[in-house]
Amino acid sequence: MELGIIGLGKMGGNMAERLRRGGHTVVGYDRDPEVTDVGSVEELVERLSAPRAVWVMVPAGKPTADTVHRLGEVLQPGDLVVDGGNSHYVDDQRHGEELAAKGIGFVDCGVSGGVWGLENGYALMVGGDDDNVKRLMPIFETLKPEGEFGFVHSGKVGAGHFVKMVHNGIEYAMMQAFGEGYELIEASPLVTKVPETFLSWQEGTVIRSWLLDLLNRALANDPELDDLRGYANDSGEGRWTVQAAVEHAVPLPAISASLFARFASRQDDSPAMRVVAALRKQFGGHAVESVGDGDSPGADVNPPKV
Amino acid sequence: MELGIIGLGKMGGNMAERLRRGGHTVVGYDRDPEVTDVGSVEELVERLSAPRAVWVMVPAGKPTADTVHRLGEVLQPGDLVVDGGNSHYVDDQRHGEELAAKGIGFVDCGVSGGVWGLENGYALMVGGDDDNVKRLMPIFETLKPEGEFGFVHSGKVGAGHFVKMVHNGIEYAMMQAFGEGYELIEASPLVTKVPETFLSWQEGTVIRSWLLDLLNRALANDPELDDLRGYANDSGEGRWTVQAAVEHAVPLPAISASLFARFASRQDDSPAMRVVAALRKQFGGHAVESVGDGDSPGADVNPPKV
Amino acid sequence: MELGIIGLGKMGGNMAERLRRGGHTVVGYDRDPEVTDVGSVEELVERLSAPRAVWVMVPAGKPTADTVHRLGEVLQPGDLVVDGGNSHYVDDQRHGEELAAKGIGFVDCGVSGGVWGLENGYALMVGGDDDNVKRLMPIFETLKPEGEFGFVHSGKVGAGHFVKMVHNGIEYAMMQAFGEGYELIEASPLVTKVPETFLSWQEGTVIRSWLLDLLNRALANDPELDDLRGYANDSGEGRWTVQAAVEHAVPLPAISASLFARFASRQDDSPAMRVVAALRKQFGGHAVESVGDGDSPGADVNPPKV
Amino acid sequence: MELGIIGLGKMGGNMAERLRRGGHTVVGYDRDPEVTDVGSVEELVERLSAPRAVWVMVPAGKPTADTVHRLGEVLQPGDLVVDGGNSHYVDDQRHGEELAAKGIGFVDCGVSGGVWGLENGYALMVGGDDDNVKRLMPIFETLKPEGEFGFVHSGKVGAGHFVKMVHNGIEYAMMQAFGEGYELIEASPLVTKVPETFLSWQEGTVIRSWLLDLLNRALANDPELDDLRGYANDSGEGRWTVQAAVEHAVPLPAISASLFARFASRQDDSPAMRVVAALRKQFGGHAVESVGDGDSPGADVNPPKV
Repeated sequence: MELGIIGLGKMGGNMAERLRRGGHTVVGYDRDPEVTDVGSVEELVERLSAPRAVWVMVPAGKPTADTVHRLGEVLQPGDLVVDGGNSHYVDDQRHGEELAAKGIGFVDCGVSGGVWGLENGYALMVGGDDDNVKRLMPIFETLKPEGEFGFVHSGKVGAGHFVKMVHNGIEYAMMQAFGEGYELIEASPLVTKVPETFLSWQEGTVIRSWLLDLLNRALANDPELDDLRGYANDSGEGRWTVQAAVEHAVPLPAISASLFARFASRQDDSPAMRVVAALRKQFGGHAVESVGDGDSPGADVNPPKV
Repeated sequence: MELGIIGLGKMGGNMAERLRRGGHTVVGYDRDPEVTDVGSVEELVERLSAPRAVWVMVPAGKPTADTVHRLGEVLQPGDLVVDGGNSHYVDDQRHGEELAAKGIGFVDCGVSGGVWGLENGYALMVGGDDDNVKRLMPIFETLKPEGEFGFVHSGKVGAGHFVKMVHNGIEYAMMQAFGEGYELIEASPLVTKVPETFLSWQEGTVIRSWLLDLLNRALANDPELDDLRGYANDSGEGRWTVQAAVEHAVPLPAISASLFARFASRQDDSPAMRVVAALRKQFGGHAVESVGDGDSPGADVNPPKV
Repeated sequence: MELGIIGLGKMGGNMAERLRRGGHTVVGYDRDPEVTDVGSVEELVERLSAPRAVWVMVPAGKPTADTVHRLGEVLQPGDLVVDGGNSHYVDDQRHGEELAAKGIGFVDCGVSGGVWGLENGYALMVGGDDDNVKRLMPIFETLKPEGEFGFVHSGKVGAGHFVKMVHNGIEYAMMQAFGEGYELIEASPLVTKVPETFLSWQEGTVIRSWLLDLLNRALANDPELDDLRGYANDSGEGRWTVQAAVEHAVPLPAISASLFARFASRQDDSPAMRVVAALRKQFGGHAVESVGDGDSPGADVNPPKV
Repeated sequence: MELGIIGLGKMGGNMAERLRRGGHTVVGYDRDPEVTDVGSVEELVERLSAPRAVWVMVPAGKPTADTVHRLGEVLQPGDLVVDGGNSHYVDDQRHGEELAAKGIGFVDCGVSGGVWGLENGYALMVGGDDDNVKRLMPIFETLKPEGEFGFVHSGKVGAGHFVKMVHNGIEYAMMQAFGEGYELIEASPLVTKVPETFLSWQEGTVIRSWLLDLLNRALANDPELDDLRGYANDSGEGRWTVQAAVEHAVPLPAISASLFARFASRQDDSPAMRVVAALRKQFGGHAVESVGDGDSPGADVNPPKV
């Protein structure tokens, strides 16, 4: 079928290519003149025949909001917009309502797959009305991996980005799990073969997984992970996961612990722990100021010879 | 080679069978007369030619300790004991020393694989001296899965059970991660296709894993997990993992959160939360007793008509 | 000085009374005709001489937003609005901007003190411009407790409710700390005098605090806390604290754990733990389905007689 | 009454002094010849009339165990030993049994109070048989603070140190609560008066406490806590608290989070976070190695001009 794509970066460009290989007619717009097919969003819309479908593949937040708003101005009733970026599901709901008021459909699509997606397909998590999703199925069928998995229509508008967000939250805790396990094994004087241990786990264990494979790839190149600092950014989706959980009163101890560990990893010095240190100093400090023993030793440090 | 096995239950029996199929000579002892090959541990020792190797496959704790102690009495210098059960690594170190004092070798082996191990092989994590491990390699080669993974000699005596313990700790947090993600997705009114979403994740995602496959198998039978209560036991290895981390001053927030979630799942009522409830009641209770607003509303509950 | 108060419930009514006792002229409006001084917000505004100050003491959220908006319509440039309710600091910022556009000042004030505030004074945490706060100082001086503590001008508009919110977050973790300690002590067979232990801690310990006093008051009435269920609501401020921390990338493990413990306390059954239970069942279940041992015993359950 | 004290360091020396001022006859032994009253433990025993009571105030672990063992050799049936140090409750039980086998009584006593204890008294938490505790009441009455609080006989041998240990666990979480609140307040651009805010909380709030007073003392000297690093040791009792909780299957999320935050504060670099960083690098790294998008952006970084 015919599809407009706005945003032809690494992801959008590859998706356009996979769709063309799959026999679809793709008109792409990007502000980079070297990769764009058309000179403007208006021209993109003119090049498509109604009812149109336009896939938005630009950064989440203002760029996506601006693009959706612009499409609302230039598309016609019966047209359809897909947000394939990493938008917050709350934004989807607003965008869906904004476009619905103009008779334009909206579908959100969480996309996983990275640079290998061009060859292997992209995992797609979709939210929207049945009719709109159905119209886009030829596109989804081409983008998704072969086989029975890798595509789901999870629910209403916002559901696609919601489940992609939770996917990333789960991912945070799984990564943290491997990190904690690695650190504990490394701390034990009993264990002398750390990378070999992780490598052996790829077969026959309960924790075998793609993330374990990735960790083993990393350990193969850098057996003690010496080339890296213990510093981890977060992408926003982990934060949204915790905030959504708080909103829905869902306990999320392991995922939030994983997010907080990343926050802490980026601190040179923890203000919270400066407070703890200050309190400990108060306990044991100058005699005139100290009125308790805190968690400092209550007993003598001068044991008898017995 | 020749191997004695003590404990011919589901695991030990299958391992004996896999070893026999692999051409080894196995003499098994079990207190169940229907499955045992010999009438006593002494007889088992007599039936093996020196230097002997005896695999202990009985429950962790006292049964294993008693068995190791008994073997120390009946084996000879140069013989070798393998503990293939779920022992605590601290016990291994004690058992190793006890046997070493008599010139008997000791190897600990964490085993993963369950009922499919007979056909597919068992993942093996081994601790002990190089010489002792080398002597047992024909046995390990037969027990392990085909292919390059599934066996590791991780380090000294205790290292095998230590890394198996950490494997299970990682497993706890991975299970908790899927649980938390499931609960959050289920709480969202946006998502109407929960099992379908998890199923789709089997391909092309970051979190694809054997545990996800198992979860999908469970959801296929019981799409809303209605047949189950949210009640989870723990096997001991999760506890040991947290205790080892505390001993080594390793932060383990996600794994410990997973363990605590299991503890909480088994409580009819939480004494800790009774304290929180009691404190909240004190805030807002009878006027003469209440001297603060706690986290109860400080504002009127009677808003004006405006 | 002269002050209008909107909302004469338990908190607002007592604050009006304390202000009158302190020599201020208070005009109160409430939709309850039995307690109101005037028939409408308009009448309240008419009764005050410019430049006016109006204290809003109604529930957070829509009631406060509606009241602030209404005041924006009827007040004049140079007038001043105080939000003394439990508003989210984000709402304060919006309300401040809305009123500023009309030349009306805005101050937010977090209030602690409950029913004893009338006699003992209210702890006040204030956000707003210096000029506006200065104008209100006669009011704050009368409302606050005697002595040097209990009042702070913490910063810009929103700062008052922000620090009150964090105060409540700290409170959550302190309550959880006592809850966890209580539960652990109760679990030990060594300790036979639980309430006596907590009572003794009121003097000479590091953890002596008003919350400990409250807990002892609760234990005096109900030594085993048998009259209560381990069920704890949350007021919103704990949730906002965690969400603000996530926004600011501040690790908040203890406070978030306390919030999640409250969420969990209100669940009949945990969906997350149903997932964990389902996975554990998959490990050890029917032979044809089981391909690993999970955290279930890998060793025999039939130990030998030795 | 008559009491022997072994260990005359800062704590033991002050306690001896307070007891003498209270009219008791104290014979002290310390290996420091400048402070000791007697030349050996044997001489100390000789100087006391039967039935004797000897208070052990030496460091926990081996020094205490050695001292208790030595006393078992030189005391007589009917004598009584008190361990007033920071021993693990598990050691108490062993020591109690060791002495009971010789007809010697044993009482454990957790002591709080630090350098001000000499003047203000020590909070005492005691475990042991009623008879033994009763015999020591004159000593406890003199050591404890005046007033009705500050002393408790919590239960059997070990109970004193158990509840002191939990006291310290609660303390960890309370300190962490203040630390987290401080860090969040400091992160907010709204709040410009941080120390002033904490100071104001000393009156009229729910979180008023001795620890808050200490924090305000620290902030008075160092308003931004600039002189300190966010580095916090732990004394052992926090670790024991978590380990006891794991043993008793008690969920301890806030206290364990507080302990782990201390562990993390002492790391230059977190091995766990190196694993997370390594995994993130694998996601987005060199094209040939990358097979997924992980939590990295799935959308273009080159938004269109719209």
